[in-house]
Amino acid sequence: MRVYLDNNSTTKVDPKVIEAMAPFFDQYYGNPSNLHYFGRKAKEAVEQAREKVAQLINADASEIIFTANGTEANNLAIKGILKTTKQPKPKIITSSIEHSSIRNTLSALQQSQQAEIAELSVDEYGVVNLAELKQKIDERTVLITVMHCNNEVGTIEPIQEIATIAHKYNAYFLTDAVASVGKLPIDVKSLGIDMLTLSGHKIHGPKGIGALYLKDGINLAPLIVGGGQERHLRAGTENVPGIVGLGVACELALAEIKSNIPKQIETLRNYLEEQIKNQIPEIKINGHPTNRVCNVLNISVAYVEGESVLMNLDLEGIAVASGSACASAKSEPSHVLKAMNVPDKFINSPVRFSLSKYTTKEEIDYTIEKLIAVIKRLRAISPLWKG
Amino acid sequence: MRVYLDNNSTTKVDPKVIEAMAPFFDQYYGNPSNLHYFGRKAKEAVEQAREKVAQLINADASEIIFTANGTEANNLAIKGILKTTKQPKPKIITSSIEHSSIRNTLSALQQSQQAEIAELSVDEYGVVNLAELKQKIDERTVLITVMHCNNEVGTIEPIQEIATIAHKYNAYFLTDAVASVGKLPIDVKSLGIDMLTLSGHKIHGPKGIGALYLKDGINLAPLIVGGGQERHLRAGTENVPGIVGLGVACELALAEIKSNIPKQIETLRNYLEEQIKNQIPEIKINGHPTNRVCNVLNISVAYVEGESVLMNLDLEGIAVASGSACASAKSEPSHVLKAMNVPDKFINSPVRFSLSKYTTKEEIDYTIEKLIAVIKRLRAISPLWKG
Repeated sequence: MRVYLDNNSTTKVDPKVIEAMAPFFDQYYGNPSNLHYFGRKAKEAVEQAREKVAQLINADASEIIFTANGTEANNLAIKGILKTTKQPKPKIITSSIEHSSIRNTLSALQQSQQAEIAELSVDEYGVVNLAELKQKIDERTVLITVMHCNNEVGTIEPIQEIATIAHKYNAYFLTDAVASVGKLPIDVKSLGIDMLTLSGHKIHGPKGIGALYLKDGINLAPLIVGGGQERHLRAGTENVPGIVGLGVACELALAEIKSNIPKQIETLRNYLEEQIKNQIPEIKINGHPTNRVCNVLNISVAYVEGESVLMNLDLEGIAVASGSACASAKSEPSHVLKAMNVPDKFINSPVRFSLSKYTTKEEIDYTIEKLIAVIKRLRAISPLWKG
Repeated sequence: MRVYLDNNSTTKVDPKVIEAMAPFFDQYYGNPSNLHYFGRKAKEAVEQAREKVAQLINADASEIIFTANGTEANNLAIKGILKTTKQPKPKIITSSIEHSSIRNTLSALQQSQQAEIAELSVDEYGVVNLAELKQKIDERTVLITVMHCNNEVGTIEPIQEIATIAHKYNAYFLTDAVASVGKLPIDVKSLGIDMLTLSGHKIHGPKGIGALYLKDGINLAPLIVGGGQERHLRAGTENVPGIVGLGVACELALAEIKSNIPKQIETLRNYLEEQIKNQIPEIKINGHPTNRVCNVLNISVAYVEGESVLMNLDLEGIAVASGSACASAKSEPSHVLKAMNVPDKFINSPVRFSLSKYTTKEEIDYTIEKLIAVIKRLRAISPLWKG
């Protein structure tokens, strides 16, 4: 049996997405910049997809800029705002639990003295400290960037409140919604979001495509220049099949939210959580107990290494993560768990289960059975475990 | 009948490429950063593709960095070198006929005073002036960037000579090989190339994937930061199916060069050229008469507009270009033809035919027939045409 529970790293592409993309490889393979039949067919498809992406987050199609992935969208948003700001000593406020594409972009900007970066602490559940935000924000603040849901532990951040605070100081608010899009309903207008980033391959779309929502009227400088694609904000021939795939993935996600699929995923996640809590002693659930995205369960298992659990579950055919995919080459403890002040006993043993619409109860039962056995085995050889 | 003769804009994806990509959407859909089965399968595929891309240009696999397209690769190469140079007043030398991704990157750098840009003139055939290069190069020169083949007219540039001159001054040599890869044999080592860029969708691979060849030992700064993908030179989850597709496209291109497919394309292109020359008066062939890439024929048709020819051929089911795809939204004359000093009579009427391995003699005959009729019709209503 193969069980894939690493859907926050990447997801299986939906068959409907694959089907929609197919003709754009060898039939409608034109370049959208061309004026002839092939070009027009490609252009049409790109604009239809833009409409579908916009609909998922209640944006206008003209506010969607396609990028290669969420990372590029985050780089574009942050650097693009900084290049156009008139503030001579710009300040950016962020949380201490952002994805590496935000964190490393900001720390590079700080190092090169292009911006002052202020980091907000989070509580034990990973919720950003709003009081601290109110203290740190000032008239030099050009941008606040806080993720919608944390990719490692699933905690949902109070982004509407953050946006409101940002706007009082005329700062823009950017949210990395890669881990929440398709799982939570998102209305950029009512939430007050100025910029939002999303990724195709986290929502059963293809890899190699992402998007930046850029609220109408915001002035942004491009990261990649060349031809005038994406309103001169992102040059390079459009990834037409990828864009079409992202469009359909967003369309499906919207329909699934409406038919309560996220709730079903949550029920299965809660079942997994309950079983683990009942059957495995000395574990800790990381992230907010209730205000958490439907598909994530992050546990810390005392007296074992998260990576050992991952490798042992892999031998049983079960794919889980220990930390986030983008950080999994490193051996340092997760910056998210550190920011949440997770006790030493639990800091090196996170195991992240991230479910999808394809996850079945049978797979979860198999996982619980194997997880119990693996942890028993690993603890048996741990010098710290007293049994 | 539908005839696609715009292969320098983009190409039909080869069925073998599509077949190779397919399992990476819904079977081996892992994130290469993950340690489990799904991740390892993806990682393996990415590294195999890297090897194939390297082989096409006689590079080492470790010298290949995947990007979203040629434009991103060009932006990364130029800005990446500039960010790491120790030269306080860096100078970059380029040709006057580069693709917009080079041209616009350089002019932005000049505007923001990050580099001084020197442009080399070309002769009437579009060949870069080497004497001028020798005059303009100096110890401040950090980079010379000249394309391998021009995308609009097909002229092949003396890149080996340029690389030699660059290296005398310890400058790096970057070549945009998007229009030559797969058509000409390329050996980065014997040609002395330090950086080379290529694009998947120009060689029957998918859109959304490109690569930068970066010679071992050259220090480059990334454009997009985040996770440590591509040796920290290009963050973001790898476009696994796209990378696999590019790998197979490069493998096929290498095999096709070995079995003389480019020669067959050239024969068909020469037939098209001869027929046009013999049957249509007052036209001009743009580009070098012999030292030209196999698949391109760029003609200027006096007394008509290139765009009118394009639209009229489109009505007959034939797709051609007038200028390059990345510039086709503009109505100014081509900067390439201007640099070549093409006479006024011919400057606004370029029509580019770009063939591929899929082009047939039947398609070319149909095109010749329709082209003759279209030009006759357009000239009949032109006030300048005396018949």
